[in-house]
Amino acid sequence: MHRTKSLEPFTRQFNSQKFMDMLELNDRGPNTTITVKPDSVDVLGPILANYKTAQEAGKILYITFTTIADYFWLLRAACECLGPLGQKALLYLAAAVSDFYIPSSELPTHKIQSSIGAPTISLQLVPKLLAPLVSVWVPQAFVVSFKLETDENLLIAKARDALNKYKHKLVIGNLLQTRRQKVVFVTPESSYEVSLSREQMINGIEIEDLIVCNVVLNHSNFIASFKY
Amino acid sequence: MHRTKSLEPFTRQFNSQKFMDMLELNDRGPNTTITVKPDSVDVLGPILANYKTAQEAGKILYITFTTIADYFWLLRAACECLGPLGQKALLYLAAAVSDFYIPSSELPTHKIQSSIGAPTISLQLVPKLLAPLVSVWVPQAFVVSFKLETDENLLIAKARDALNKYKHKLVIGNLLQTRRQKVVFVTPESSYEVSLSREQMINGIEIEDLIVCNVVLNHSNFIASFKY
Repeated sequence: MHRTKSLEPFTRQFNSQKFMDMLELNDRGPNTTITVKPDSVDVLGPILANYKTAQEAGKILYITFTTIADYFWLLRAACECLGPLGQKALLYLAAAVSDFYIPSSELPTHKIQSSIGAPTISLQLVPKLLAPLVSVWVPQAFVVSFKLETDENLLIAKARDALNKYKHKLVIGNLLQTRRQKVVFVTPESSYEVSLSREQMINGIEIEDLIVCNVVLNHSNFIASFKY
Repeated sequence: MHRTKSLEPFTRQFNSQKFMDMLELNDRGPNTTITVKPDSVDVLGPILANYKTAQEAGKILYITFTTIADYFWLLRAACECLGPLGQKALLYLAAAVSDFYIPSSELPTHKIQSSIGAPTISLQLVPKLLAPLVSVWVPQAFVVSFKLETDENLLIAKARDALNKYKHKLVIGNLLQTRRQKVVFVTPESSYEVSLSREQMINGIEIEDLIVCNVVLNHSNFIASFKY
């Protein structure tokens, strides 16, 4: 699930114009062909191969949302599908949902006229969906949430607060300023930093590679803990 | 000039995933090639040809902005470049800039904590850049602005107000609900509707085709009016 126009798996490095620039038109009337320029094949080839594999194996499903209401209903529907998987289900809740919103019942019907001056807007708190999700919708699943802060001093305390409140399994915390280099994994038992080494950065490894690896490990341990 | 992630010329019908789905990987080790599937060539071919022509002739320049401040400074810089063209310059100001904003000096440094409740936000009016643009930056140019409303009763009056206030040449008005079918051209002398016929819609003609055609016509008449 992703918000419309968010970066998406497989294509996040390319926008539409970049795609156009990679293409070559071989205009031969009815036998016109379009090919990817040879020097772009090196970059695009492996990504396209992974995309096709995922698509053909039915391993990826794109669901888009725009409003908070869309997100909530789609997430609940997804939980209904994933619930039967029990502990094997992993929910990776990375969507940066706003903390505040204006309920649709309070939105004006018509465009606000600027001639009457600028409005003052009273926002409302977005309901914390993590509470029913963890306790009712998928109580057995391995639920991972994210906590983004801008103030380093708050990060771990806020991540731990969330775990205590919602009783899920893992909070991945990051700071806006350093989010591409490091994150902190906070579990009910411990917290540890996951970060890219200088060498990994030079080699184009991204923080997401380490995050996914560590999440899978945590999930495997979680499943294993039920076996004995 | 366009806001980051807006639809763009030539690619607006395709998102990145659509591009991936059009591609075929012919994996032959070091001689791997990627081609566009034959049935997609029919759609993409003409668009790609137009794109290449525009690019190679240096007829298109993409400039992106994110904030209102970016937009303002870039627009002023663009006006400095276009000013010397006199009446031949046409400014088509279609960017739907917000009427209200929060000045960067009033933005908080850190993320607002939801634990202290939802904030009330006092917006401020975005300065109307059309005033200095028309009177100072490009006083000879053919300036076209847009007026989008949701209330049909306000549309023409508001378009005419804008013309009286800013003294430019053309306002293109549209309603959110019917914006893909019709617009109204409002000039200092007249107003007339430009809309797609049922037949044009069936044939895939878009309202933008008619708008551009009519704008060019108005601009040509404007230039001609100075010749005698």
